[in-house]
Amino acid sequence: MPQTFERRVFAPVVTPFTANLAIDTSRFVTFCRWLIGQGAGLAVFGTNSEANSLSLAERRRLLDTLVERGIDGQQLLPGTGACALPDAIDMTAHAVSLGCHGVLMLPPFFYKGVSDDGLFRYYAEIIEAVGSSQLRVLLYHIPQFTGVPIGLDLMARLIAAYPDTVVGIKDSSGDWANTQAMLERFPGFRVYPASEALMERALPLGAAGCISATANIQPGAIAALLRDWDKEGASVRQPQVSAVRAVAQRPAMIAALKHVVAHFMDDTAWRTVRPPLTALSDAEGTALIADLRALGFEMPALAAAAA
Amino acid sequence: MPQTFERRVFAPVVTPFTANLAIDTSRFVTFCRWLIGQGAGLAVFGTNSEANSLSLAERRRLLDTLVERGIDGQQLLPGTGACALPDAIDMTAHAVSLGCHGVLMLPPFFYKGVSDDGLFRYYAEIIEAVGSSQLRVLLYHIPQFTGVPIGLDLMARLIAAYPDTVVGIKDSSGDWANTQAMLERFPGFRVYPASEALMERALPLGAAGCISATANIQPGAIAALLRDWDKEGASVRQPQVSAVRAVAQRPAMIAALKHVVAHFMDDTAWRTVRPPLTALSDAEGTALIADLRALGFEMPALAAAAA
Repeated sequence: MPQTFERRVFAPVVTPFTANLAIDTSRFVTFCRWLIGQGAGLAVFGTNSEANSLSLAERRRLLDTLVERGIDGQQLLPGTGACALPDAIDMTAHAVSLGCHGVLMLPPFFYKGVSDDGLFRYYAEIIEAVGSSQLRVLLYHIPQFTGVPIGLDLMARLIAAYPDTVVGIKDSSGDWANTQAMLERFPGFRVYPASEALMERALPLGAAGCISATANIQPGAIAALLRDWDKEGASVRQPQVSAVRAVAQRPAMIAALKHVVAHFMDDTAWRTVRPPLTALSDAEGTALIADLRALGFEMPALAAAAA
Repeated sequence: MPQTFERRVFAPVVTPFTANLAIDTSRFVTFCRWLIGQGAGLAVFGTNSEANSLSLAERRRLLDTLVERGIDGQQLLPGTGACALPDAIDMTAHAVSLGCHGVLMLPPFFYKGVSDDGLFRYYAEIIEAVGSSQLRVLLYHIPQFTGVPIGLDLMARLIAAYPDTVVGIKDSSGDWANTQAMLERFPGFRVYPASEALMERALPLGAAGCISATANIQPGAIAALLRDWDKEGASVRQPQVSAVRAVAQRPAMIAALKHVVAHFMDDTAWRTVRPPLTALSDAEGTALIADLRALGFEMPALAAAAA
């Protein structure tokens, strides 16, 4: 099936907090604008956004703010999945009302061992309740956090029932065999691996791009890789992009990303995370920056964006 | 240390829904009154209440309703933990304002592999933000759902920092060695196993009672066991109570409990669950009721409560 979408990179935008743990709207908008300027779309309210540490009211307000400040809805792919169906419906309807490009939808993630019937019904209830032909849903498979995998058979059921609505998936499993199976079974479906390091394997099979934590720190390099893929393939840009990913990919990923942004913006406020997360220690942060520097890594124009 | 609390059983009250999946307030209040009449306190918004399938607004409203309908705050032990700190603070402060006996507090359960420092800070932020000498927190250890265990060292830190506030824990691990370790390390701390079948082992070590899913269907029998423990010990009531527990404890526990309530209330509306859960099939339900009937099981005065 011919590809009907433009390859894109989306950053699950890290969320800055003030010293008293409120959302720092001003820093957030500045950073979002920088990401767009670098060629990345905004998967706000992703795992790496600490989305599940934000209240529904906070997420609604922050999405409003982005649109009020002039960010084009087509750049926005907010996370809207939630444990509670009413929350997921509310946030999804709100995203549609603001003209968002699409939504990224976690399964409900508290109850474990739930059936495909139950998960199908969760997604179906949301889609039916929102009831908009404008809605575009990307499923979000991240079993290491949710404990609730989205399997191929469930995908097939959802695609069959809502072919114009359920248009893609983010595969954060880190299991290449799973990503490959999705790409092969659902040609034309937008499959986004969660790492730019997989582009050399995923793009030849029809992947739609990537939604990657480290798109927060190398959005321009990933956007360039996707833009020039048809002429360059993996040879030119993939090695450096993968090297940066390998260095930045740490167990405390969110704290690490925020440390890097803080460093290159010369703004320690960016290091703040909400509990239960904890910031990197100074030693961990220094080592991370040194490893990135050794690769010649920079975040172009970031400091200027902050000024 | 002498025991300074009354032994109690709390039911994590199952939450009825209407056909369109809204909370059925009327059925809920009726059932809560029946539970209290049987001698159980109300751990509303527990795992078996489908609490994480309810929005914050729904939980706030439903708690208000219980108090408005005359239920004594001292019977109420609402679940108030949440992934997002603002939600947990909001719900906890609301419970305190309504004069609740205490709150049962999940750790934030989306992010995995979080440190004790991060979890300590989560609980500390809530306790400090609520800032009330009336607050009584029971921690909620249920790692099979949260993926975020509450270990003994974290408990010790929280008890040391907030000795008048962090007064107990529900241990839903199902790991007796863990429950025993809690009881032995923290004498006087209110440890509630999640099963009445453990009473014969836990009460001699100082357990505070239990907060058990199946307290929804045999509250009176458990309350009697606790009441008469000092004269009867395990010999008289424990075997039947444990037998009912063993029959009702199924993988689809919530659906099973609702099926039993529906059967004994002669009210099929009680079978409804919210996605991602699914109701028992007729065959599963019939088998469950037959197994309970074989034990001579009844839910006394339940049908009358509904009338």
